[in-house]
Amino acid sequence: MNTLPKTVKIVEVGPRDGLQNEKENVSAEAKIQLVDMLSAAGFANIEAASFVSPKWVPQMATSREVMDKITRRAGTIYSALTPNMQGFEAALAAKADEVVIFGSASEAFSQKNINCSIAESIARFEPVAAAAKANGLRLRGSISCSFGCPYQGEVPLESVADVVRRMRDLGCDEIDIADTIGVSTARKTQAVMETAAREFHLDRIAGHFHDTYGQALANIYASLEVGVSIFHSSVSGLGGCPYAKGATGNVATEDVVYLLHGLGIETGIDLDKVVDAGLFIMGQLGRKGNSRAGNALAAKRAG
Amino acid sequence: MNTLPKTVKIVEVGPRDGLQNEKENVSAEAKIQLVDMLSAAGFANIEAASFVSPKWVPQMATSREVMDKITRRAGTIYSALTPNMQGFEAALAAKADEVVIFGSASEAFSQKNINCSIAESIARFEPVAAAAKANGLRLRGSISCSFGCPYQGEVPLESVADVVRRMRDLGCDEIDIADTIGVSTARKTQAVMETAAREFHLDRIAGHFHDTYGQALANIYASLEVGVSIFHSSVSGLGGCPYAKGATGNVATEDVVYLLHGLGIETGIDLDKVVDAGLFIMGQLGRKGNSRAGNALAAKRAG
Repeated sequence: MNTLPKTVKIVEVGPRDGLQNEKENVSAEAKIQLVDMLSAAGFANIEAASFVSPKWVPQMATSREVMDKITRRAGTIYSALTPNMQGFEAALAAKADEVVIFGSASEAFSQKNINCSIAESIARFEPVAAAAKANGLRLRGSISCSFGCPYQGEVPLESVADVVRRMRDLGCDEIDIADTIGVSTARKTQAVMETAAREFHLDRIAGHFHDTYGQALANIYASLEVGVSIFHSSVSGLGGCPYAKGATGNVATEDVVYLLHGLGIETGIDLDKVVDAGLFIMGQLGRKGNSRAGNALAAKRAG
Repeated sequence: MNTLPKTVKIVEVGPRDGLQNEKENVSAEAKIQLVDMLSAAGFANIEAASFVSPKWVPQMATSREVMDKITRRAGTIYSALTPNMQGFEAALAAKADEVVIFGSASEAFSQKNINCSIAESIARFEPVAAAAKANGLRLRGSISCSFGCPYQGEVPLESVADVVRRMRDLGCDEIDIADTIGVSTARKTQAVMETAAREFHLDRIAGHFHDTYGQALANIYASLEVGVSIFHSSVSGLGGCPYAKGATGNVATEDVVYLLHGLGIETGIDLDKVVDAGLFIMGQLGRKGNSRAGNALAAKRAG
């Protein structure tokens, strides 16, 4: 039986990736409280902001205010999505610790979403990457559709390897391999992760799984088996799936922490406080959360 | 990397274990249609009835009518729960192919639920087991709380081993190791399954997982890695968790089939037809199903 990593870093993406995909508008105050509750729960990395045009993503228009007013916890990396140099300047001004650039492993997805090839889309991030390095910020590269694409279906392993190399060559400190539509299953997950690990440091590769088909926890366990030790998740499963209305999106943080702690893996996270944060933000959204562990633990509290 | 089983048998428990835990009453006609839709989807084993006193489980009062009116598919085993000889006689009269007896791996659960020790509770099934053998019926033994107990918490591996031996000695053809409250995580699951497999044939051990903490698919994948090739699941995740109101119960069949097919494992099951059956029964219950794959596939159909 493979040895699993002893410690795992969870990147909590609820405040950005999660909320961005929620229809209900959430106030800056509520977002600040959410991020602070997550910091207090012990997350070492929180995706807190996106400096994209508010014309395109109104939910993220409060990013500067959020970054200004949160209580920074020592040791926590606060990340911001930066689509271009304008976004980078805003992230720098807002004192983000890490900026996130992105591309797709699917040519069809790239063409359909941003109307250019994968190679062109990543080359456009060169100035952002250089500026991040020049300013001493961490740089993260996110690769969507690494396990399947809503337009082209299968995504060749070689496409994933190619984008990992491009992200690496831009100087990324960490690279996320994302299952944007949640279609992967355990063995495929291992094959994709092993492919990525041939191009980049295994201990700086992150798994970003969606639970659309209920597979995320099995994919995370399978990734642990091949040595992946960074995972993205979203408190209470915030954020739906834009490709299947009513389906599940980001894997829920509570479920991931329950798994990791059950496996004896250290995360530095207090699960009870994550449940608190989930109950808080779902109260703001006015609905029940998507985390099974979160709902079960909340039900046990209620007696 | 471990070799996974090439084929897996799924025991569809929705019509019995699932519906029994639903508050909403479902008509005999709807249950018959559900079982027939599941047979048509290709399940080799369906838990269709329970011959307990209707005073205790009113939802199962229609069991005889269901067994009489379903269309038997050649090759499918239709199982019935039989708590005692009266139940056995009813199951025999209803032409069940398999009868199911049960016990707990937790002493506290046994005392609390049936007011006797584990050993006594299983000894009481001796006449049922003998009658099943005498009448040529298959005998299945179900062991609840094999991974944790709502009353005593931890359940020793030796308790699981002891109950497996007792079930084996009664002549069980198949033994289910059940995570009644859904608390197990992947490595613990493997330890429990390996313990059971030291006492009984690995290829006749079944995993019965609840998704209360979102762990069921990871537990099934972990079980496959140690060679378990029979799993229980419930269409659309029918049946809640009696120990945490509002929490999830049986793992959803659609999610399990999605995993198995993704792993290249043969099940003989047509996933689209399972989705049909799930949509049908959730329509009867008037709510959305608990299967993530089921909901995603239904959303894709709706466009």
